[in-house]
Amino acid sequence: MNVLIVGLGLIGASLAKTLKKNTNHHIIGWNRTESVTKRALDDGVIDETGELCEILPKADITFVNFYPEAIPAFIKENKDYFKKHSIVSDSCGIKTKICRDLEKENLDFYFIGAHPRAGREVSVYDKALDNLFDNASFICTPTDDIPRSKTDALVGLAQEMNFARTVVTTPEHHDEMIAFTSQIAHVLACSYVLSPLAPYHAGYSAGSYRDVSRVARINADMWTELFIDNKEPLVREIDDLVSNLMKFKYCIVNEDADQLHDLMEKGNKIKEEIG
Amino acid sequence: MNVLIVGLGLIGASLAKTLKKNTNHHIIGWNRTESVTKRALDDGVIDETGELCEILPKADITFVNFYPEAIPAFIKENKDYFKKHSIVSDSCGIKTKICRDLEKENLDFYFIGAHPRAGREVSVYDKALDNLFDNASFICTPTDDIPRSKTDALVGLAQEMNFARTVVTTPEHHDEMIAFTSQIAHVLACSYVLSPLAPYHAGYSAGSYRDVSRVARINADMWTELFIDNKEPLVREIDDLVSNLMKFKYCIVNEDADQLHDLMEKGNKIKEEIG
Repeated sequence: MNVLIVGLGLIGASLAKTLKKNTNHHIIGWNRTESVTKRALDDGVIDETGELCEILPKADITFVNFYPEAIPAFIKENKDYFKKHSIVSDSCGIKTKICRDLEKENLDFYFIGAHPRAGREVSVYDKALDNLFDNASFICTPTDDIPRSKTDALVGLAQEMNFARTVVTTPEHHDEMIAFTSQIAHVLACSYVLSPLAPYHAGYSAGSYRDVSRVARINADMWTELFIDNKEPLVREIDDLVSNLMKFKYCIVNEDADQLHDLMEKGNKIKEEIG
Repeated sequence: MNVLIVGLGLIGASLAKTLKKNTNHHIIGWNRTESVTKRALDDGVIDETGELCEILPKADITFVNFYPEAIPAFIKENKDYFKKHSIVSDSCGIKTKICRDLEKENLDFYFIGAHPRAGREVSVYDKALDNLFDNASFICTPTDDIPRSKTDALVGLAQEMNFARTVVTTPEHHDEMIAFTSQIAHVLACSYVLSPLAPYHAGYSAGSYRDVSRVARINADMWTELFIDNKEPLVREIDDLVSNLMKFKYCIVNEDADQLHDLMEKGNKIKEEIG
């Protein structure tokens, strides 16, 4: 197959490297900033590049690796170039807005939203890894009009690429789960380091500070889009989190040791069970 | 010197192992559950044990490794046994309540509160490590009546033990910083996994979930005491965190991309600068 990677940042270039490492597919690459495409070609991360009007028609599967808002825009703008009946996918962190938007378009190829669940604090070509997805889940969110064979082909490619797990679900369920597993974790890491005491942590901090604050290193441009595009599920998670924090506060203020103990025992038990 | 470790759980036994590995001091050990003391002796983690009335008078430095409430109680109960002019210390996570309580006692030895900044999810003898403190900070909080030479001796021992850093500060400053670096991190990890979506995370989660939820594995007995004993600083941190979360919520609900971007950029910059 010809697999086309559009956008060679951290995720795009890691997808390309993973494809090169684990499959024999022919990898075509394209990046808005041409110097990056050239480096990927020189590094052997991709086999070929070219003008969009030349390479889009060749690709059996295309991954568009842009910030959320740019993905449907790019696909609509280039919709006449994509190979007929081919699979077009993406890798961004929200799915409902993109999939439901493109579902309404009259496309002669199949858009299946995808989300490879891995990342790093810095999202540039240089940080790409051929093992970024080794322990990762590949989630894809076909809408009802997608033939089963197309979803199977995309999932099959993810398995060939050595993803640890593949999940097929709806865009809405994906976004609800991601609000919990990823988005709120980033919101709270940022909120945590905004404490006035954060700059003085050295000498007082250890593993808990290190782990809880890690994802405060955030790409503000990308996450602004991701958060606003997933407003309702994320706000529900913020509300749940604040409500749980207030339960802790209430127990501590009232020195209610029994209730506080119960809350922690519940948290501990959940974490023990779910990993 | 004779160094006595009272309480051979995770921290006590790790202190003993670290002393054996990095110093030539004679290590005496004692644990409430005798079978643990016997194992520590058999494992060579301690050199000697005995009745409290025999071993307390021999120790030049004693570390009492109990839950917070039990520490002043133990020290007062056994105050006639400790060696005159010796140093008595502890290892628990709050300092003000303990140090200010013992400061009022008429003791003929020197109590200097201490907090070796490391831990693991499970706090038992079996999990003790001789390298638990290799990258850790040793904080001690002498009250005004402690001679400088005694603080220097305790800090000197921590340096011999290969702690990465030593900090001398007041009990109050310690507790304020620990409310931020450790306690609120545990509160938020527990609050996070109490989300109704937590049990369904598998397939949707990656590094951010893993790191932010890690310390939800918590010893509820110990942390109940630690949180209530450090009520005011911890409630301040909960209030700050909730206020920052509400700022995020406000931006997201109102789709205020500029403000949301500013908040994240601020969090990102702080984390980049402070590590």
